Amino acid sequence: MSRILTGIQSTNIPHLGNILGAVLPAIELSKQAGNESLFFIADLHSLTTQKDASQRIQSVNSVAATWLAFDFDTEKNLLYRQSRIPEVCELTWYLSCFTPYPMLANAHSFKDKSGRLNEVYTGLFTYPVLMAADIILYDAEYVPVGKDQIQHIEITRDIAQKFNTQYNQDVFLLPQAKTDENVMIVPGTDGQKMSKSYNNFINIFLPEKELLKVIKTIITDTTPLEEPKNSSTCNVFKLYSLLANDTQIMEMQANYAKGGYGYGHAKTALYELILTKFERARTRYAELMNNPALIEKELQIGEAKARTMAQEKLKLVRSVLGF
Amino acid sequence: MSRILTGIQSTNIPHLGNILGAVLPAIELSKQAGNESLFFIADLHSLTTQKDASQRIQSVNSVAATWLAFDFDTEKNLLYRQSRIPEVCELTWYLSCFTPYPMLANAHSFKDKSGRLNEVYTGLFTYPVLMAADIILYDAEYVPVGKDQIQHIEITRDIAQKFNTQYNQDVFLLPQAKTDENVMIVPGTDGQKMSKSYNNFINIFLPEKELLKVIKTIITDTTPLEEPKNSSTCNVFKLYSLLANDTQIMEMQANYAKGGYGYGHAKTALYELILTKFERARTRYAELMNNPALIEKELQIGEAKARTMAQEKLKLVRSVLGF
Repeated sequence: MSRILTGIQSTNIPHLGNILGAVLPAIELSKQAGNESLFFIADLHSLTTQKDASQRIQSVNSVAATWLAFDFDTEKNLLYRQSRIPEVCELTWYLSCFTPYPMLANAHSFKDKSGRLNEVYTGLFTYPVLMAADIILYDAEYVPVGKDQIQHIEITRDIAQKFNTQYNQDVFLLPQAKTDENVMIVPGTDGQKMSKSYNNFINIFLPEKELLKVIKTIITDTTPLEEPKNSSTCNVFKLYSLLANDTQIMEMQANYAKGGYGYGHAKTALYELILTKFERARTRYAELMNNPALIEKELQIGEAKARTMAQEKLKLVRSVLGF
Repeated sequence: MSRILTGIQSTNIPHLGNILGAVLPAIELSKQAGNESLFFIADLHSLTTQKDASQRIQSVNSVAATWLAFDFDTEKNLLYRQSRIPEVCELTWYLSCFTPYPMLANAHSFKDKSGRLNEVYTGLFTYPVLMAADIILYDAEYVPVGKDQIQHIEITRDIAQKFNTQYNQDVFLLPQAKTDENVMIVPGTDGQKMSKSYNNFINIFLPEKELLKVIKTIITDTTPLEEPKNSSTCNVFKLYSLLANDTQIMEMQANYAKGGYGYGHAKTALYELILTKFERARTRYAELMNNPALIEKELQIGEAKARTMAQEKLKLVRSVLGF
């Protein structure tokens, strides 16, 4: 059995790009026989950039509701808020005493981010240690990450190895980064990669009118309605084809080719496809967001299990360290 | 009422210099009406330099036994191991997100220590944040510190202030450093300030023979036995006069002045004075060290109270942060 641990950013409401590129593939992976999946909402990490309390509560709920909206099995998988397992903070202190300072100072992500911020906080500097604790507290074997995060898994391995070597005991499992070469690239409304930071994202959970409004903002060329259009360069078509079945795709392709089919038509088709395809998820999401107690209940299932695992590991760590 | 918080280094067995210069004055201060004193054994901090588990357990017990040996009132005061209040680690993470990175990078103590170590660990860098958490978790008003630690109290105030300002609420009390200009300087066996690092210390809890052996190593000049001696430049006399009453001091002074009184005699007198003066403490210390369960029991009294205070504060912090 492979234990896979996935950290989920908690500062943003997941958009279509996140859902197609990360949420659905991760849920798919978690369903494979033999996999045990831990998903944590990285709300402790969020404090490095997000200070506002109500924003944090709102976005953590949105993230949880998104995952729960997609047939996520909270009995088989563990979904939990990082902050509900305070053991991770205790382990972070222990690990910080085995983390060479230069290793963090030279980490790419710190250098990159610290150059762009007026005021750099210590949390930004030490968060790879918290991340290491997040991983090794649960003996995670695989951690799906983007390429920019591979170095953090290496740091995690280094810290775990240093600890194990110091005490001549395999206290921690060394995790492996799991990068997916075939991550789906979802274009945003402007054709660039869909991203919160480009403000070109589609939030599929918006009320119908607002959703339609966003879809209408997708940038297209100026080919007049009556003329044939090139589907392969069109953002609307690209998005549509990521969601549609083969018949639907070929149909739209034919409409583009024959002319007399405008981008407005294509946008309406995309809008309707999103509504159909995500009907259940949209209903479930709205239900959860209207009743945060439901989210709380679902999260507590995973949190109770995660905490037991964490406490067991921390007991060993304390005994090895003489605490 | 003033709440005073004192951190106690846990890596070394307290020696005569620590006892006269720190332990006894702190216990005296804790007895003053209107003072509420919290004493914590900084075992989490010890991990930055001390990795060995059995050494840690041994030295933490020694430290606790020393304080307990000197009529320390565990009902009135809180004596607790830092590691038994894991809330402090959680608060450390929160505070790290309000601690400007350059503030730690420029701290004197980090610069000093990091220059002297081959491998610098992150714990050494971030420990002022842990120290800040140690203090503000309990609303401590005064923190007795040496001059080298004043900057850390300033860092603590800065962090607390940043947090309070961010949330426009007095979540944390800003502590004040309390430096004592009149700290007793106790000479070591070589005449320098008594210090573990100079290896010139006297452990008053040693078995009699070993204690005598250490006292015999006190460096004196070569004035022959029969000649008069200068008490004011003699290490043995200096140590003796820190412990003796006025009559005893004048008697030894007279012996030095009249000649025929050797350093061996003075050393024997010092040895006997230590045995008499610390008889109760030595008995109590041995009793505790021979029965660690007694130490555990005493510590748990303070730990239960400290944890309640910590949990209450952390509850407020979490709510302010949206966790």
